[in-house]
Amino acid sequence: MTTIANLFKTRLPILQAPMAGVQGSALAIAVCRAGGLGALPAAMLSLDVLRDELTRIQAATDAPCNVNFFCHTPPAFDADRDAGWRTALQPYYTAAGLDSNVPPGAGRAPFSTEAAEVLQAFKPAVVSFHFGLPADDLLARVRGWGAKIIASATTVEEALWLEAKGVDAIIAQGLEAGGHRGMFLTQDLTTQVGSFALLPQIVRAVKLPVIAAGGIVDAPGVAAAMALGAAGVQVGTVYLCCPECTTSAVHRKALQSTDARHTALTRLFTGAPARGIVNRVMRELGPMSDAAPAFPLATARIGPLRAHAEGQGSGDFSPLWSGQNASRCRDVSAAEITLELAQGLTR
Amino acid sequence: MTTIANLFKTRLPILQAPMAGVQGSALAIAVCRAGGLGALPAAMLSLDVLRDELTRIQAATDAPCNVNFFCHTPPAFDADRDAGWRTALQPYYTAAGLDSNVPPGAGRAPFSTEAAEVLQAFKPAVVSFHFGLPADDLLARVRGWGAKIIASATTVEEALWLEAKGVDAIIAQGLEAGGHRGMFLTQDLTTQVGSFALLPQIVRAVKLPVIAAGGIVDAPGVAAAMALGAAGVQVGTVYLCCPECTTSAVHRKALQSTDARHTALTRLFTGAPARGIVNRVMRELGPMSDAAPAFPLATARIGPLRAHAEGQGSGDFSPLWSGQNASRCRDVSAAEITLELAQGLTR
Repeated sequence: MTTIANLFKTRLPILQAPMAGVQGSALAIAVCRAGGLGALPAAMLSLDVLRDELTRIQAATDAPCNVNFFCHTPPAFDADRDAGWRTALQPYYTAAGLDSNVPPGAGRAPFSTEAAEVLQAFKPAVVSFHFGLPADDLLARVRGWGAKIIASATTVEEALWLEAKGVDAIIAQGLEAGGHRGMFLTQDLTTQVGSFALLPQIVRAVKLPVIAAGGIVDAPGVAAAMALGAAGVQVGTVYLCCPECTTSAVHRKALQSTDARHTALTRLFTGAPARGIVNRVMRELGPMSDAAPAFPLATARIGPLRAHAEGQGSGDFSPLWSGQNASRCRDVSAAEITLELAQGLTR
Repeated sequence: MTTIANLFKTRLPILQAPMAGVQGSALAIAVCRAGGLGALPAAMLSLDVLRDELTRIQAATDAPCNVNFFCHTPPAFDADRDAGWRTALQPYYTAAGLDSNVPPGAGRAPFSTEAAEVLQAFKPAVVSFHFGLPADDLLARVRGWGAKIIASATTVEEALWLEAKGVDAIIAQGLEAGGHRGMFLTQDLTTQVGSFALLPQIVRAVKLPVIAAGGIVDAPGVAAAMALGAAGVQVGTVYLCCPECTTSAVHRKALQSTDARHTALTRLFTGAPARGIVNRVMRELGPMSDAAPAFPLATARIGPLRAHAEGQGSGDFSPLWSGQNASRCRDVSAAEITLELAQGLTR
């Protein structure tokens, strides 16, 4: 069996999904040491923190590692939409006794020349992208130091587009996946497809190795993905309660409750559809409310409500990112999770 | 490996999904003869036709067969909603030169005492239900002649509800599945989950055997479902282009085109969310438009537009039911499809 491990030179064809906001180098290091491909999500890191995190990883392991970037085009600031968003959230600010005079801000930066500069000093073995790919010159620069390049496809069309751009492997991100949909050729959510349908159709459509993502949480899931033609798997949600993650207490609690049975795609926390456990603000405003401004501008105004609620032990305003199967989330080490997943490779 | 074949006394743990409107006894007979559990969808049949079809099946094979019923509660007729639906469709009637003075009607009847009467004369080995279960007395009657009873669950909660009602097995209907969502405890579409996430969670939640449905189209799909803990599989879409189906020419053509890569849940054809290939009326009215009245009352008014368009070789107003993976649809016999699926059992 040829797996993605040959391409990445890892022991296992198991990728830890980069999960911005809930993990840093510690999870990446633990998964790399266990033989998987750990990942550092860089979307929410300043360049200084990115450099520090890469330094930590390099000091801890010489195993291959993945660094992940978003590559959206930042939207122009739209004062009307911002005002609408402020109005939609005002009742919550009032109830909490908070001042809603918050500076709007981005929260997530796309891959840039400056980030490539930092990266080049470390030459990570794998660089992955979400929301398409960066501009050709930036991509060429990453390729220049020999990094393998991977990116998410949520439709067959996106997979074909990525293949034409010369990526080394494609992540088939099924609708089950937690966090942001990687969709970039369309914003029509009806195009988004479950792993059972997406994975085999992408495998048939492209010549590249395909990494299955979305709904895989244990050894049977890995076995199922490999049966459907995957060359490897990318797994996120089941790592969220590991001690190596920085997942908040309210988030961990939600993941391990029956609340986690009900997730939805929501725009409320960033502006782009991302899957999280349904909570109060999603129920009350509607998870896909048009009131939220374009990605990533929604984050700044909901942030203070989140901080206030979390301070009181409530996840009512938190992005409780989760895939559609959180049933295996538990407080065990990332190494244990990785080795358990690996048992699915030999079934 | 204990499979659902032991329960149904079939050679194979492969169920042909009942697909009202596109198949009758011919497909059921072909699948039964090939060793699977064929199914007769009864939702759109008059009692006389139901009797005729059951007679045909009984004459053709003594293998176990499944008869499928919807068990919705018919809604009260709502003149305002009906008028709104007529208004929404009027431009299409005008363009087609058709009279929109059509009697509103139901199109699909729920399981009833009269249907049970017909059924009892044939005592089918398996009776399956969609949209929950019929009233307890009706269910007891079906159980009385020894039929195994199965029904669809689209959430863990629905699976637990069905288990408590005493069904013999549960169909875990993943979001990928074509046709009507079997949802009955909620109408919130965000609760609907891909097979990769739904199947293992239901398997863990109930003691009953679980049949995987949604996105399974070939042997690798069967192998994947079994890896995830299924005791059997239910497969629909890939049979749609078999000669034993009554699928229309426009429907067959759409299934075998790249149009089939884009399906959506739509209320336009019946009033309840059902998955079909996106076509003109879905694009123009919005697939989940509130203009359509409650299930099953939408059908009557869109029917003449469908008939007119199909007469001109167009599927613009047709329910082009399909799961999210139609890529294996082709004009081969149902026996060939069934035996190919069976190869996934021994991988």
